Amino acid sequence: MSIVVQSIERVEPSIAGELGVAGVATVHEAQGRKGLFAPYMRPIYKGATIAGPAVTVLSPPGDNWMVHVAIEQITPGDILLVAVTSPSNCGYIGDLIATSLRARGGVGIIIDAGVRDTRELEAMQMPVWARCIGAQGTVKASLGSVNIPVVCANARVEPGDLIVADDDGVCVVQRCEAKTVLKATRNRLANETKKRNRLADGELGLDLYNMRGRLRNAGLKYV
Amino acid sequence: MSIVVQSIERVEPSIAGELGVAGVATVHEAQGRKGLFAPYMRPIYKGATIAGPAVTVLSPPGDNWMVHVAIEQITPGDILLVAVTSPSNCGYIGDLIATSLRARGGVGIIIDAGVRDTRELEAMQMPVWARCIGAQGTVKASLGSVNIPVVCANARVEPGDLIVADDDGVCVVQRCEAKTVLKATRNRLANETKKRNRLADGELGLDLYNMRGRLRNAGLKYV
Amino acid sequence: MSIVVQSIERVEPSIAGELGVAGVATVHEAQGRKGLFAPYMRPIYKGATIAGPAVTVLSPPGDNWMVHVAIEQITPGDILLVAVTSPSNCGYIGDLIATSLRARGGVGIIIDAGVRDTRELEAMQMPVWARCIGAQGTVKASLGSVNIPVVCANARVEPGDLIVADDDGVCVVQRCEAKTVLKATRNRLANETKKRNRLADGELGLDLYNMRGRLRNAGLKYV
Amino acid sequence: MSIVVQSIERVEPSIAGELGVAGVATVHEAQGRKGLFAPYMRPIYKGATIAGPAVTVLSPPGDNWMVHVAIEQITPGDILLVAVTSPSNCGYIGDLIATSLRARGGVGIIIDAGVRDTRELEAMQMPVWARCIGAQGTVKASLGSVNIPVVCANARVEPGDLIVADDDGVCVVQRCEAKTVLKATRNRLANETKKRNRLADGELGLDLYNMRGRLRNAGLKYV
Amino acid sequence: MSIVVQSIERVEPSIAGELGVAGVATVHEAQGRKGLFAPYMRPIYKGATIAGPAVTVLSPPGDNWMVHVAIEQITPGDILLVAVTSPSNCGYIGDLIATSLRARGGVGIIIDAGVRDTRELEAMQMPVWARCIGAQGTVKASLGSVNIPVVCANARVEPGDLIVADDDGVCVVQRCEAKTVLKATRNRLANETKKRNRLADGELGLDLYNMRGRLRNAGLKYV
Amino acid sequence: MSIVVQSIERVEPSIAGELGVAGVATVHEAQGRKGLFAPYMRPIYKGATIAGPAVTVLSPPGDNWMVHVAIEQITPGDILLVAVTSPSNCGYIGDLIATSLRARGGVGIIIDAGVRDTRELEAMQMPVWARCIGAQGTVKASLGSVNIPVVCANARVEPGDLIVADDDGVCVVQRCEAKTVLKATRNRLANETKKRNRLADGELGLDLYNMRGRLRNAGLKYV
Repeated sequence: MSIVVQSIERVEPSIAGELGVAGVATVHEAQGRKGLFAPYMRPIYKGATIAGPAVTVLSPPGDNWMVHVAIEQITPGDILLVAVTSPSNCGYIGDLIATSLRARGGVGIIIDAGVRDTRELEAMQMPVWARCIGAQGTVKASLGSVNIPVVCANARVEPGDLIVADDDGVCVVQRCEAKTVLKATRNRLANETKKRNRLADGELGLDLYNMRGRLRNAGLKYV
Repeated sequence: MSIVVQSIERVEPSIAGELGVAGVATVHEAQGRKGLFAPYMRPIYKGATIAGPAVTVLSPPGDNWMVHVAIEQITPGDILLVAVTSPSNCGYIGDLIATSLRARGGVGIIIDAGVRDTRELEAMQMPVWARCIGAQGTVKASLGSVNIPVVCANARVEPGDLIVADDDGVCVVQRCEAKTVLKATRNRLANETKKRNRLADGELGLDLYNMRGRLRNAGLKYV
Repeated sequence: MSIVVQSIERVEPSIAGELGVAGVATVHEAQGRKGLFAPYMRPIYKGATIAGPAVTVLSPPGDNWMVHVAIEQITPGDILLVAVTSPSNCGYIGDLIATSLRARGGVGIIIDAGVRDTRELEAMQMPVWARCIGAQGTVKASLGSVNIPVVCANARVEPGDLIVADDDGVCVVQRCEAKTVLKATRNRLANETKKRNRLADGELGLDLYNMRGRLRNAGLKYV
Repeated sequence: MSIVVQSIERVEPSIAGELGVAGVATVHEAQGRKGLFAPYMRPIYKGATIAGPAVTVLSPPGDNWMVHVAIEQITPGDILLVAVTSPSNCGYIGDLIATSLRARGGVGIIIDAGVRDTRELEAMQMPVWARCIGAQGTVKASLGSVNIPVVCANARVEPGDLIVADDDGVCVVQRCEAKTVLKATRNRLANETKKRNRLADGELGLDLYNMRGRLRNAGLKYV
Repeated sequence: MSIVVQSIERVEPSIAGELGVAGVATVHEAQGRKGLFAPYMRPIYKGATIAGPAVTVLSPPGDNWMVHVAIEQITPGDILLVAVTSPSNCGYIGDLIATSLRARGGVGIIIDAGVRDTRELEAMQMPVWARCIGAQGTVKASLGSVNIPVVCANARVEPGDLIVADDDGVCVVQRCEAKTVLKATRNRLANETKKRNRLADGELGLDLYNMRGRLRNAGLKYV
Repeated sequence: MSIVVQSIERVEPSIAGELGVAGVATVHEAQGRKGLFAPYMRPIYKGATIAGPAVTVLSPPGDNWMVHVAIEQITPGDILLVAVTSPSNCGYIGDLIATSLRARGGVGIIIDAGVRDTRELEAMQMPVWARCIGAQGTVKASLGSVNIPVVCANARVEPGDLIVADDDGVCVVQRCEAKTVLKATRNRLANETKKRNRLADGELGLDLYNMRGRLRNAGLKYV
């Protein structure tokens, strides 16, 4: 059964903003090392960071019909997230869809398939994380669903969950855990700055993290 | 049997020029979504576009002898296209061969194997689309052929066929179809501009493409 | 048994410097087309070249404990080289470890696994060649070894061996062969400049390398 | 946080039995073409079919400690299903764990990582579907969780969900949908027998499925 | 444009039969080491050999509609060969289609995508060479073509060309070269029997093929 | 430089025999979880186990000339082990070479490339572990070396090292460590039998390995 869920709850914008600044590696650690997408998901250009609630799409291989349906569900700040029922390299997304997404206020695209018109997408500064760059055209023949839970690049995403994406990849934070993750992220960031300074001053991780005893107990031998 | 076909018919330069401006995604769509190379074929640097007739090479794995033979067949505007009889990551092409190619007027390289000296190639602005960046040296011990039909990265290419390559990948247009594809490409480009403007103004693809009725008939439910 | 070898012999700095300038493709050729790492080892940003002795690490999958141990063994000019006992995409290395490495004088990182904080690493100009960009966190629970011989991305590396890495990939030169390779590299470079000039002037490789007779004898037919 | 959920609800045994007989392809179709695991999940020997509720494990890469924890949660008819936080080829499972699983009444293993002792496993007729056959040893150093929702080979599995596995691969049926899927499966099986007989008698799918008109309308030309 | 070519010329049955007995490795060598499909094409069970003319299908990803169209074009002895416009793991073929194929006299299936119902296919002894075993269902929504030239697993196939497939893989012989290849195959087979006997008697390939001089000239050193 | 080392020291036959019986998984564990080849190395048929000293070959991609040279170096009980300088799917080995190998007393083949004539190889019971089954023909044009140290499928092998291979994969034991590994293997085997019996009787690994306290200390929660 193919459905479009029109009303979803979204993670709060202020949380999204702050976690976006923290970045993928930090957020992923702060929530217990979970939620990371497979590393084959790469940005089409470097330097972009996005964070916002996901509008999810489940599409058949080589068919981008539901992407058009999903655009209507986008509200300002949203991220379009496309999963597929079977692996595909086809180019579901190009500059026309990106233009439409931007007109609705969408801020980025995550797609477990191909993307094309990459030069135009960079020119218009619409960041996309994709399985590959692929221009193979798609059809508009079979249904899928919008705003249902999906598995995208090995990560489970519910509609409205927070997506954070940067040069390190893509990460999902469950909507119901976003506040807790925000706190843990703040702690982690404060902590990292201190550690970075001490390491830059020449202190070793072995001492900073107090590892020498544990290593000895585990049986490490220096020769 | 190893042969070098010295006289091939080439696609007209004016067609090549205009289709190069249109780009891979558009040309591929205009000819009915065919001719695209596998997406593992990536440019060694971003921003280059080439279009021109292919001088084809069929080489054994790890052996670039025939590439040297092929350079002699290059005329100004040509693209050197290298297919292999078995998958290879070896670096068949470096800055020396690129220098020789440029001296003959060649404008770019498509190779279903590895390329090396990538920094030098970018410095001299010689665009290459390759299976991988790989420095493993090749030998010059076994024959292949030049200007015979080949399968390169899943695409069938006849010598003289038009190759278009940009950041989205590589596409081949059969020489005999080039004029027809040119017309279809012009139509498509005109059409896309109109659509882009309407989408930028906030019109939805659902309405622009008149999809709502078809979606309902196909059984899509809004909940 | 897990060990840390504290005293290793390192390739001479002057050799490292000169081979670094020559680059991966040339050095690899000069030593008889060996020592190249698998082409999946890619730099996280373009344009960096490093050359120096390897401090080797053998780590379990998803566990970067030994990396912390290895940092203490780094001396100025060294390259941190991480091999794994089983393939892993985890992000063993981030900007904190890179900060610590730099504080010790380390000049770069080669890792047959994932790296993260790539934007920060580029900002601090710490070059890394890795299997992938991956942010998945690692644990510090199991031992490995430091400064033992390892296989990294299909290449055998002994501690103290010379690593050269640039946009073309990564190459290892055995410490005991470094001087010989240096000589062969100088010869090759001198030779290449001459050849480049002749090719740029339009001379064909077929003539420059005197191939026409051999090709004919091998059976090549021009039609 | 690492947890072991000790009390889970399981799909009914009678449903499991009947869907197991129907097989993966049929069950997957009957529930709307969803729930299929990635095709890299292959059985270690041909001819086995299993169906039963999943006891889920989430393990770190190269660490099978939680598998030992999970065995205690197995009740007769259960299937041990192991997901990992990052891709791994290590051999988490061998004949000792299989012996222990059998002693608890477990009927099979699904693991998105490696398995070893495959000859012994076949000799004792303990079916395993795995990402690969790999003997690399694992450690017992880091925690994961048991009986939490996991993503395994691209499929979302809740503890107690029904797993069906045969030569065609692995499929999950959500516990709450199992009864509905059972009905749809019965219909489908009855339907398939009829169709098979008609096709065996020489009737064409074109006629049996009444496709000729739709094909003509879609624009198919016979030449 | 989607077309079905209803009248194709087929390679002669007697040639097909004799080349099938010779097998893939021999036929491929006899025609100059060309025509081999990529090695990811594997049989679903061991021990089958087929040889016959190809009825070609070009299908969209995840859509097997054209397979149904192609069955009508099958005549006794034909092989159904399915190429796709973009890589797909979906299960295009199952026991129903195989039943229909057999009713028409088809002898085997080559598909650059997934196959399912593999146990039933083996039970009915219908050999299939496929990219993978995958049960993901397909749709019947988009057109492709039947009996046009295709690229299948890197090999170019024209309708009516001879396909030979066995445990070593799949090979295509162009229809117009079939007679020549048959002669070369007979020579090769006669030759191989003699060589096998001499090698079994302990004669070395070095002597049998008269290699010692050539190796010495090439610079091989015995130490 | 291409060399053939004619005199190598080989691991003792009695050690080889006993470690072969123990099998890959056990031997690999007994020597500290090292020496395992990448899991893509698969046997061409199930049920074979071999153990013996390696005669190593380093070959160029797509060129099996050195395999012929290596056969002369085979003595009874040896295993032919072929590494390549660059990844290759070509079929280096077929039934003729296997016939010659057998005439010399060789007991099996390990090749990090392709193998062909697999049905004949199984019929003559010559076990082969290979990267793939591939029939693509090779040339005899470029030199490599015989009996030098090689990296084969990520494992370092010296000539004369002990290779063990079975359905679980391939493992190398360094010649100088073979005796120590033999002792450790015997201990492990004795130990495993006891453990298997206890697990079969229903004792849990949690208790047998005394894990409950460690798990609690590590923070595992039962809910």
